[in-house]
Amino acid sequence: MKRRYFIYFSYKGTAYHGWQMQPNGISVQEVLTRALCTILRTNLEIVGAGRTDAGVHAKLMVAHFDFETALPSEFDLVAKLNSFLPGDISIYKIAEVKPDAHARFDAISRRYEYHIFTNKNVFKNELAVRESDKLDFEAMNLAAKTLTKFKDFTSFSKLHTDVKTNNCQIHHAEWTQQGDEWVFTIEADRFLRNMVRAIVGTLFEVGRRKMNTDEFATVIAAKNRCKAGVSVPAHGLYLVDIKYPDHIFIN
Amino acid sequence: MKRRYFIYFSYKGTAYHGWQMQPNGISVQEVLTRALCTILRTNLEIVGAGRTDAGVHAKLMVAHFDFETALPSEFDLVAKLNSFLPGDISIYKIAEVKPDAHARFDAISRRYEYHIFTNKNVFKNELAVRESDKLDFEAMNLAAKTLTKFKDFTSFSKLHTDVKTNNCQIHHAEWTQQGDEWVFTIEADRFLRNMVRAIVGTLFEVGRRKMNTDEFATVIAAKNRCKAGVSVPAHGLYLVDIKYPDHIFIN
Repeated sequence: MKRRYFIYFSYKGTAYHGWQMQPNGISVQEVLTRALCTILRTNLEIVGAGRTDAGVHAKLMVAHFDFETALPSEFDLVAKLNSFLPGDISIYKIAEVKPDAHARFDAISRRYEYHIFTNKNVFKNELAVRESDKLDFEAMNLAAKTLTKFKDFTSFSKLHTDVKTNNCQIHHAEWTQQGDEWVFTIEADRFLRNMVRAIVGTLFEVGRRKMNTDEFATVIAAKNRCKAGVSVPAHGLYLVDIKYPDHIFIN
Repeated sequence: MKRRYFIYFSYKGTAYHGWQMQPNGISVQEVLTRALCTILRTNLEIVGAGRTDAGVHAKLMVAHFDFETALPSEFDLVAKLNSFLPGDISIYKIAEVKPDAHARFDAISRRYEYHIFTNKNVFKNELAVRESDKLDFEAMNLAAKTLTKFKDFTSFSKLHTDVKTNNCQIHHAEWTQQGDEWVFTIEADRFLRNMVRAIVGTLFEVGRRKMNTDEFATVIAAKNRCKAGVSVPAHGLYLVDIKYPDHIFIN
């Protein structure tokens, strides 16, 4: 009988055309699928909890795959995958779940971070976005708080996507200083495509005092992508956590 | 009258064929020289405090260049250089020195770090070296201490280099744990080519208990490169500081 497994991993997105397999570039999904198929000597598909765009990183990403039996016990599968995979993809663990559990549909919430730094730092070049404008983070945090009061985030969505609704429940949204970085943390039940980068770009307008908190709320209420600020670059964005209900796990 | 300036900067070495200008690849020296010449609208040469090999990083590197007058005051040269340069080279400051001061010959001491991490970390892929063997850092620190008792480091030198002497005075050599990394810090008046990477490779032999402290001392005393361990990879190595006497600076 077929069994289903969740695989937990991280990746540095710099070298990849995003998570999703595609004809025009190498994706994390493709590299990971190839590694799993090679080591398990089978053909299988990996279903991700969501997509990340080209250049976006994941401190934690989850996906599921099916395998006809228990996983091999004669070797450490996680260690073997980590040896096989390149240095920019790393597996944390693999856990069995119920056969109908789904990495995407069963996710209760997702958390993203957006990292910026103000002084040029050669070692963060691909890992955060340099923002040399002086930003008013207090104003940005006031505006960020209003995000939790809205449901429809059409204003921060890519146009013409195929989702049925643009409703999201944002639980938390906050800028914090972490060493020489400012980090925007946002958690919601779901995110629309491009949503975090559009939110951060619009908060930058607040930080530059070109928009106040009321105007920020008006942008959301307008349900019109053209009202929001420009999207910020991909390489500051990290998927950092995905939560699932306990009952989908076996043991 | 010609004036001489010291320029302080950092770089991530991943994309470069080392510091030194060369025909077969792009070097930090080349990119920096081009930036300075373009902004100052002149031809000039930059003399580095030393070389770093391909892939080696610098948290701090120093070089000197000559310019016929005072530096332009109508714009911020450091800021302009940082805008012009790619994200993996960053300028800290430019300071005038006496006309006969020399970035290489006047350096009193240099400090390097070698960074390793034990658990796979996708974000450190190019910034430290993963070492999955369990290492005995206590033994490695005992052995490292003996380095300060020797003068001739032929055993850790590249063969057939053109230096007159292989004598170095090592002031300090120590492994410390920093977060999820182990960092080897070594300071000396000068270093031979490949010396730090050969020392770290030989200390790894001690850490793996294939060599004890006495045997490590014997390797140094042998003055024979063939006795030492293999060189460790470039991307764990950082030049971190270069010290100069106060009297070479103007003001």
